[in-house]
Amino acid sequence: MKLWLTTITAVLSLQLNASELKLDNNLAYQLTESLTVEVGQRLAGSEADARAVAWAEQKFKQLGYDKVWTEPFTMQYWQRGQASLTVSAPFQQSLVVTALGGSIGTPFDGINAQVAMFDSLEQLKQADAADVKDKIVFINKSMGKDKLGTFYGSVVGARAQGAVEAAKLGAKAIIIRSVGTSINRFAHTGIMRYSDDVARIPAAAVSVPDAIQLEKMLSRQPELTLQLQMQNKLPGEVVSHNVIAEITGSKRPDEIVLISAHIDSWDEGTGALDDGAGVGIVMATGALLKQQGRPERTVRVVLFGNEEGGLVGARAYAAKHAAKLKQHVFASESDFGAGRIWRLDTGFGPNALSFAKTLQQQLAALGVEPGDNTASGGPDVSVLKAQGVPVVSLQQDGTDYFDYHHTPNDTMDKIDPAAMQQNLAAWLVTTAAIANSSIDLRQ
Amino acid sequence: MKLWLTTITAVLSLQLNASELKLDNNLAYQLTESLTVEVGQRLAGSEADARAVAWAEQKFKQLGYDKVWTEPFTMQYWQRGQASLTVSAPFQQSLVVTALGGSIGTPFDGINAQVAMFDSLEQLKQADAADVKDKIVFINKSMGKDKLGTFYGSVVGARAQGAVEAAKLGAKAIIIRSVGTSINRFAHTGIMRYSDDVARIPAAAVSVPDAIQLEKMLSRQPELTLQLQMQNKLPGEVVSHNVIAEITGSKRPDEIVLISAHIDSWDEGTGALDDGAGVGIVMATGALLKQQGRPERTVRVVLFGNEEGGLVGARAYAAKHAAKLKQHVFASESDFGAGRIWRLDTGFGPNALSFAKTLQQQLAALGVEPGDNTASGGPDVSVLKAQGVPVVSLQQDGTDYFDYHHTPNDTMDKIDPAAMQQNLAAWLVTTAAIANSSIDLRQ
Ligand SMILES: [Zn+2]
Ligand SMILES: [Zn+2]
Ligand SMILES: [Zn+2]
Ligand SMILES: [Zn+2]
Repeated sequence: MKLWLTTITAVLSLQLNASELKLDNNLAYQLTESLTVEVGQRLAGSEADARAVAWAEQKFKQLGYDKVWTEPFTMQYWQRGQASLTVSAPFQQSLVVTALGGSIGTPFDGINAQVAMFDSLEQLKQADAADVKDKIVFINKSMGKDKLGTFYGSVVGARAQGAVEAAKLGAKAIIIRSVGTSINRFAHTGIMRYSDDVARIPAAAVSVPDAIQLEKMLSRQPELTLQLQMQNKLPGEVVSHNVIAEITGSKRPDEIVLISAHIDSWDEGTGALDDGAGVGIVMATGALLKQQGRPERTVRVVLFGNEEGGLVGARAYAAKHAAKLKQHVFASESDFGAGRIWRLDTGFGPNALSFAKTLQQQLAALGVEPGDNTASGGPDVSVLKAQGVPVVSLQQDGTDYFDYHHTPNDTMDKIDPAAMQQNLAAWLVTTAAIANSSIDLRQ
Repeated sequence: MKLWLTTITAVLSLQLNASELKLDNNLAYQLTESLTVEVGQRLAGSEADARAVAWAEQKFKQLGYDKVWTEPFTMQYWQRGQASLTVSAPFQQSLVVTALGGSIGTPFDGINAQVAMFDSLEQLKQADAADVKDKIVFINKSMGKDKLGTFYGSVVGARAQGAVEAAKLGAKAIIIRSVGTSINRFAHTGIMRYSDDVARIPAAAVSVPDAIQLEKMLSRQPELTLQLQMQNKLPGEVVSHNVIAEITGSKRPDEIVLISAHIDSWDEGTGALDDGAGVGIVMATGALLKQQGRPERTVRVVLFGNEEGGLVGARAYAAKHAAKLKQHVFASESDFGAGRIWRLDTGFGPNALSFAKTLQQQLAALGVEPGDNTASGGPDVSVLKAQGVPVVSLQQDGTDYFDYHHTPNDTMDKIDPAAMQQNLAAWLVTTAAIANSSIDLRQ
């Protein structure tokens, strides 16, 4: 086997014998375990990200993929520093806080200010500047639970846009209640945005118990002050990579069936659910498909880099392959944890809906219900869908996903091997059906 | 109302109106909330411990207790510093770690060593020094769950004695799998011990997910090294306090019915379950008893200091009151979280067992079953029981207690107000029955 002539790969290669992969229905779980144990967190742009890329390239080769390569892209690198949030007298104590991804740090001595609490981003937008100026904004919106994670959309705006809205009103910093569904005392990170025409202020999240605690404190002592300190760094542009591997099609090798996940993760957990599970599922799918006999169309597995920073690898992929997107007959991504797949949503042309029905019937034995035709395909794949590539979403049960997502608690022990087997089976059925068909899903 | 003429109390007094207490069946919950929100963590010997003592003295007065005072004792103060544990190449990553209470720190650059893993303290004791010398010992014993928390006893030995046993064999440090029942990624602290004739080595705990992760790494790479850094301080002797309050008995004021909890907590959570709940329950019990009519015997509520350091306040109390322990007709402590009381265990003389039966019958409506006569009375009260004081243990359902205990996740949101009401009712029934009786429970 050809090995990358780099230190990282040389070191990883020592592990080959220690973690032999078996091409069986536990393969997805094995791969996710290998990634999370041997690499762990892999923040986009970091040294660990580079190790994850090397790990993926090596594993693809070990799994017998026909072609394996990486595609570089540039990105803005962000590094988390120490963070602390303390309550001043009379209730002196520390709260559990984490920086939002992309946030600037505070001055070394921190920011000390009174608090302006809001129920939601919408309420903040309607506030008077006089009530916000020179304060730390606190958005205290809780999040509900369901299988599809539909509540995420209605709370994550505070994370993404809160800093801009708070800064417009003169706030010194913003903290939000974690976008998450657990009462465990973990703060939830995730990307936030600045706007070029608005001052940049530090943005952080407190855990749900700390948000509840802070609300109780403010009801007793509205004038209390918080001291926020964060030492994040924004070192500038670096290079990261998408990792791509193919099983070459036996009859129509130019037609690409793309299945994907993202290789990067946030840095506080080991990224087992987000998105180690997806990585394991799609890597295993291609390997087992080849074992079952080469498919007619080419199956391309893409592990996108820097999804967390805002689909950066996916956009680079779409740009680089713009001329060949018409050859992409299908795309899908696994990026919603490791829960069982319970519904098939499609994003097909009208003539392909009878194929969608057949596909769902094949999946019914795995407990998969019919869904609708409005699938996004997954975060990264939504970029390809926007260019007309047909997609499916194999919807996972995400009821508990936001208990762990983007927290230190996203670790391998949260994954049920049996659910991973069911995911792998559903991806195999779906990918095989499309890769062995000549249907045009665009029509 | 007389106020302590200290800054702490002056500041606290501002809060009186903001958190008026209602003498109703929610009082225990209200008090626990007040303590955890307004003071938060209260590590024995710290400034926060002094604020908790001031809080308690003030609340006792506010609640209408007849006498309120503090009793000082000296103790060894221990302060947690930053802690980190990192895995070296090829699996570079950070593990979640916390210092065990009382542990020394490491040199500033940390301790870097290979790992000697053991299933239990017992297995470590039987190890060859050659396999342990200059390594970091890792005891990886998991803990089961039940209502009584009986598995705690069989795993906590590694926490208490592991450093001594590891040092005897030449280890550089010890880390243990957290003594806890949750897979959430929190490390569990708690007191550890040194021996004067054995070298002192740093001692820490990793979270359960990190213990599982480390075990998987070691199975792939037994030679890997860990880097442990901790910056704990042992500043020496300081003064802390027991806080004591009484409802004077109407007929037999010299006979003391002692109910108790401990005011200190570990420093990473807010000590809601351990032992804020107990503090709320026993403070409310005395206040509501007086409201219902003064009891015949004196009801003394003791909030012991520095239970976590090894029953330090309880021993000071027993020593100071040695001559009057015979007047202590009864003692009990609430220190097992906020779960419902489901069983009454007693530690009475043989002639009092019929009274135990009557008491249990009174508690039956609250769902309390009869237990045995081997009650300890609670950690601090065990010191009084050893001196012949009759006790009961109102056994709480502790099934989930060790999910939170001694971790950052021990916070107020884990407490069910209805369960607190049931606790308060059971403590009221029990305390009233004994305080309004003339029975000698020693006989
Ligand atoms: Zn993701
Ligand atoms: Zn994510
Ligand atoms: Zn306790
Ligand atoms: Zn404790």
